[in-house]
Amino acid sequence: MNNRFLDACWGKPVDCTPVWLMRQAGRYLPEYMAVRSKCTFLELCKTPDLAAEVTIQPVDILGVDAAILFSDILTPVEPMGLKLDFVPGPVFENPVRSMADVQRLRIPEPEKDLPYVLEAIKILRRELSGKVPLIGFGGAPFTLACYMVEGKGSKDWANIKRMMYYAPEIYSALMDKVTMMDMEYLNAQIKAGAQAIQIFDTWGGILSPTDYEKYVLPYTTRLINGLNRMETPVIHFVKGSGTMLQTVQKAGGDVMGLDWHINLGTARDLLGPGMAVQGNLDPSVLYAPSEVIEQEVTRILDENAGRPGHIFNLGHGILPTIPPENARFMVECVHRISQR
Amino acid sequence: MNNRFLDACWGKPVDCTPVWLMRQAGRYLPEYMAVRSKCTFLELCKTPDLAAEVTIQPVDILGVDAAILFSDILTPVEPMGLKLDFVPGPVFENPVRSMADVQRLRIPEPEKDLPYVLEAIKILRRELSGKVPLIGFGGAPFTLACYMVEGKGSKDWANIKRMMYYAPEIYSALMDKVTMMDMEYLNAQIKAGAQAIQIFDTWGGILSPTDYEKYVLPYTTRLINGLNRMETPVIHFVKGSGTMLQTVQKAGGDVMGLDWHINLGTARDLLGPGMAVQGNLDPSVLYAPSEVIEQEVTRILDENAGRPGHIFNLGHGILPTIPPENARFMVECVHRISQR
Repeated sequence: MNNRFLDACWGKPVDCTPVWLMRQAGRYLPEYMAVRSKCTFLELCKTPDLAAEVTIQPVDILGVDAAILFSDILTPVEPMGLKLDFVPGPVFENPVRSMADVQRLRIPEPEKDLPYVLEAIKILRRELSGKVPLIGFGGAPFTLACYMVEGKGSKDWANIKRMMYYAPEIYSALMDKVTMMDMEYLNAQIKAGAQAIQIFDTWGGILSPTDYEKYVLPYTTRLINGLNRMETPVIHFVKGSGTMLQTVQKAGGDVMGLDWHINLGTARDLLGPGMAVQGNLDPSVLYAPSEVIEQEVTRILDENAGRPGHIFNLGHGILPTIPPENARFMVECVHRISQR
Repeated sequence: MNNRFLDACWGKPVDCTPVWLMRQAGRYLPEYMAVRSKCTFLELCKTPDLAAEVTIQPVDILGVDAAILFSDILTPVEPMGLKLDFVPGPVFENPVRSMADVQRLRIPEPEKDLPYVLEAIKILRRELSGKVPLIGFGGAPFTLACYMVEGKGSKDWANIKRMMYYAPEIYSALMDKVTMMDMEYLNAQIKAGAQAIQIFDTWGGILSPTDYEKYVLPYTTRLINGLNRMETPVIHFVKGSGTMLQTVQKAGGDVMGLDWHINLGTARDLLGPGMAVQGNLDPSVLYAPSEVIEQEVTRILDENAGRPGHIFNLGHGILPTIPPENARFMVECVHRISQR
């Protein structure tokens, strides 16, 4: 069993820096596209054998040190009562706009409402045994609420911001419910065998540091506090959080995800030695020739300067048009160079 | 003459904090829409009387302390030889992809190729005399190059990043030419009467701090150094630059534009007393009820803590769906609260 990833989450010594890629089971892989061509995106999320198959692909193809469950952050929102579709971006037919809408939302029972997720985790633990650890994941309450209120992706997220400012009681009732759902969902993933949990807060960075602290931090903190994580490290990734890292750190968790907008060395100085970090290569660098990729991997490892608790990753999901051989080369660079 | 804005640019004492709004001549104003309904966006940019009319509207309607020339950052790129259209986002029919494409670009002569911009400035100086100063502006070389290479807006700007990494000689030849164009264009604006210059680097923040320093900073530095700015302060605004402010500061300029992702107090501490700042209200706060707007204005003024050299502004352009009365209320708050 390759334990580099879990050891690094806990700040323990490792033989070389562990590495995985956000969205590593994805469209840039022809092997993924072959599976995906047979069903819709949601069907793939809901079919444990297929979800497990695409989860494992990058472990074999790229040589990464962790697998992350193939799913979507919005999967658990559907059984709350919102009709989900991908066209290809996510769309909810009935977004949440009123207190009545919030009250109609139910808290799913993961074993009953999301059995395919837990089943995929069980299959994966069997099939990955002796290889690499399995990461489970969920969206942070705020990011889920963004989609639930807006009904789809947005440039300025005007609807949820109007709700925050004009109807804070609806906003907090919604966030309470989403946080509760998230807690039960992620604890069920841990119970089914997830060996680490990553919380994705894709949209936390759209707010000012002040609004983040007021409208987001209390819920993420409650979520992380509510996870059964004696042996399960929690990675907290808030995209665009480089200007408010110490505020985000208050939410707790063991590993801070970093996008590519902050120097990793600066981030580590701000966070202190007690927190591991994950990141932070610009995903676009994988478009570059191999000498540039190697140079950037070296630079990030140099910025970490041998401090324990570094998991190498991209600063955001891998782009669909990246050549897989470039991703594989990056993984190889991380292992080779960090051994020096 | 209301000199608050220029005084603050130079770090001089002011009677109250000056304020204007990025994109203040824009779609949120019915008065703007009335003019705009009679012509296309590009026609509006190219008709000095109309451009001057919409430039002045927010001065009268909102009571702001500066006017900014109505134009588009891509206006001067068209006479370089790229065919520009708005559909409604900007599109170039013939993007720049090869060294031959770069060599074909010409450096416009502002007086001959962009007379309507200079004419609008002259009209505005006459009509604004005794009211408020006039800000001229241009896109930073990198942001212009992003559109020129991509041909339109993009999520990941893959084409220009590939050019940076695979064909640095084409990239630098393009950036040299755009920087030269920018310098002549902005100097012509100063000569025609612009009393301050804002450089918009909307996309500088898509790069890591390391890549920004390597691929963007040298060109913006050269541009700012090349401006005839004895009496004309330069505002440098790089969206998403909160994690690399001290790097961006090396480009020079008198005022640093701040988006809303960094606390203004933190930014001032990083930049030191020698540089003024402009910002940094989240544009979405103008969706909020007046008590929230007042509270946020107060918070930002408190963060500045009376330091000289603060121009209040949004952290990005005003959104098209903002009620004009909210913008007016914000301006009134800034003046009233900063007098205390």
